Amino acid sequence: MATTLDLRTLQWLSKEYHDMNGTHYETLDKPPSALEFSRLVHISRPVVIKGFEVHALERWTDEYLIERMGDRKISIAVTPNGRADAITPGPDGKLYFVEPHIQQMTMHNFLLSLAPNTEKMSWPAENQEICYLQSQNGNMYTSQFFESSPDQERQSELSEFEPLKADVPSEIPWCSQAFDRSPDAVNLWIGDSRSVTSIHSGSDPYENIYTVIRGTKHFTLLPPTDGWYLQERIYPHATYTRPSPVSTLTTTPSPLTTSPIRWSSILNPHLPDTLPREAHPMHISLKAGETLYLPAGWWHHVRQGLDENFSNAERGEELKEEKTIAVNWWYDFEGRGMGWVWLNLLRSGDVPYGNTT
Amino acid sequence: MATTLDLRTLQWLSKEYHDMNGTHYETLDKPPSALEFSRLVHISRPVVIKGFEVHALERWTDEYLIERMGDRKISIAVTPNGRADAITPGPDGKLYFVEPHIQQMTMHNFLLSLAPNTEKMSWPAENQEICYLQSQNGNMYTSQFFESSPDQERQSELSEFEPLKADVPSEIPWCSQAFDRSPDAVNLWIGDSRSVTSIHSGSDPYENIYTVIRGTKHFTLLPPTDGWYLQERIYPHATYTRPSPVSTLTTTPSPLTTSPIRWSSILNPHLPDTLPREAHPMHISLKAGETLYLPAGWWHHVRQGLDENFSNAERGEELKEEKTIAVNWWYDFEGRGMGWVWLNLLRSGDVPYGNTT
Ligand SMILES: O=C(O)CCC(=O)C(=O)O
Ligand SMILES: O=C(O)CCC(=O)C(=O)O
Repeated sequence: MATTLDLRTLQWLSKEYHDMNGTHYETLDKPPSALEFSRLVHISRPVVIKGFEVHALERWTDEYLIERMGDRKISIAVTPNGRADAITPGPDGKLYFVEPHIQQMTMHNFLLSLAPNTEKMSWPAENQEICYLQSQNGNMYTSQFFESSPDQERQSELSEFEPLKADVPSEIPWCSQAFDRSPDAVNLWIGDSRSVTSIHSGSDPYENIYTVIRGTKHFTLLPPTDGWYLQERIYPHATYTRPSPVSTLTTTPSPLTTSPIRWSSILNPHLPDTLPREAHPMHISLKAGETLYLPAGWWHHVRQGLDENFSNAERGEELKEEKTIAVNWWYDFEGRGMGWVWLNLLRSGDVPYGNTT
Repeated sequence: MATTLDLRTLQWLSKEYHDMNGTHYETLDKPPSALEFSRLVHISRPVVIKGFEVHALERWTDEYLIERMGDRKISIAVTPNGRADAITPGPDGKLYFVEPHIQQMTMHNFLLSLAPNTEKMSWPAENQEICYLQSQNGNMYTSQFFESSPDQERQSELSEFEPLKADVPSEIPWCSQAFDRSPDAVNLWIGDSRSVTSIHSGSDPYENIYTVIRGTKHFTLLPPTDGWYLQERIYPHATYTRPSPVSTLTTTPSPLTTSPIRWSSILNPHLPDTLPREAHPMHISLKAGETLYLPAGWWHHVRQGLDENFSNAERGEELKEEKTIAVNWWYDFEGRGMGWVWLNLLRSGDVPYGNTT
């Protein structure tokens, strides 16, 4: 048995949610207690949290990262356009959900490929490949880590970032206590303004605690009730591949046995007339040392560094290119009670194929 | 702008909720910490809590209540049938939402009107009026109490039960901390098996912490997603009145200026074939010393004492009539986030008038 909400009901929910909540978000001057955080999780709206300190904040200069990581190889997402995991035309002109090419390189070479911390610079428009550390498979800590006992060495060698682990706690006490569980994954993200994460909410919803270590991260957020206008479609899967070590990246459609991907067709929610008039996106920029609680089911589009939509100049800040480094903790969300039911209802509509119009 | 979910969607929600959650409820051996309770509130399912001690539990014998209350008058709901605030035919044969007659009497006379704690006895079938202490206006403590300062004497004389207040805490620490507020009302309930509270969820939803002091209380519970088959209708308002001090109660329709009441048409959910096959009511019997967390938006039908539907005999207990005494704390529910939106959606259907079929 399936169901589909009609457009009128979806619009009603979206308006009702906005009427009740507006686009306000709370900013806390220091991390909440577990009890305070539990109450915020129940409300399930974004919260900016200041003063959550991790060692990485003072330690992670380029020099430190390079020195600690040495000649270890790390997995980097490489794309021709900075859009890993995004809807992009393939060689046949059809739209695909394209995953990045994964390339192994040293931290040193990876950081060299990114923006230096200087004045605004223009990037070569073409033939410049863009690197983003975004492996998001629990690249710092995975659930295996939490399930194994310390004397099993906690499967620590699973992480490519072993030498950096001492700088990032595997879990956040006030979160783990509020959620009553350990994280499912802890991820490291390093990139510059050329890399963008396309809008998504996750079929596998996580409670997301996102801390910026260096640079600035720009979130565009929409509540779960706003999914109806994000035009989710089913797209065939492809990957950027490099046929020979010297060739440029090409989009290679995956075998038909690879499941197609359900994804929003909105490529850039900041372009005028992309979202309907009823949309009330929230824009939250996080600076180093700031943490976002991004509740499960919320749609998010993520940019970093210099961004024309979040003008640093407007805020009286010097325009400069910079690397942005962040760490986030994904916790399984509480699906009991109404949790799963409502998220399923909101995403219960028929989702057409993306290439058939 | 209003919306209406179609029957198919309502049925889907109800089934999905049941598939995800079943009819399981947790029983705690001791009261939770504020953090534990906050997590339970987020899940929003009924929980039975043992070991929450209030002085009333050891103190409230009939003798004590009579002695403490002396010749003070208290407001008692009197009905011909034990059904205060219920849908009942009026003199014209139409259905009304009928409120009880309120009569002032001493605790002594009120307790005399109730079942003694003896073997099962049969009540005179006719012309026997039934008393229930159920004023539920914060008869022990109201929000005024919490808003006033102690040196204003906390408006304490507003309560008819002043001499009993020392036996019942005005708030429950682990609840007030989890909800981050004081209760909106604390109510005392005293009655016997002839009084029944008809099924409702409350247009004004409260988080309800319900503690049994003496006797047994029987709850029949349905989740907010099950409202669709409870046949809410709009009923005209009436009150039981006594035209002269010696006459019996008659149902007096209220002036047309009194707002009609939206109420379920299900008079007794325990009668066979009253609920559809898809219904999965939860039956929870609470004994003295047990507390129920009844989450906001849950439908509840409440009986007490001897009850053929919750056979004490089956549980190997002696059949006896008894008075049931309970106290509950109503806390405003967290409407921010999705709270109000979902409850509104679930009750958004057109509600027809009850008398037009
Ligand atoms: O930082 C990013 O680029 C994206 C983060 C994100 O999408 C997530 O944590 O779910
Ligand atoms: O105890 C009763 O009879 C009814 C209790 C109730 O309906 C409530 O607390 O909302």
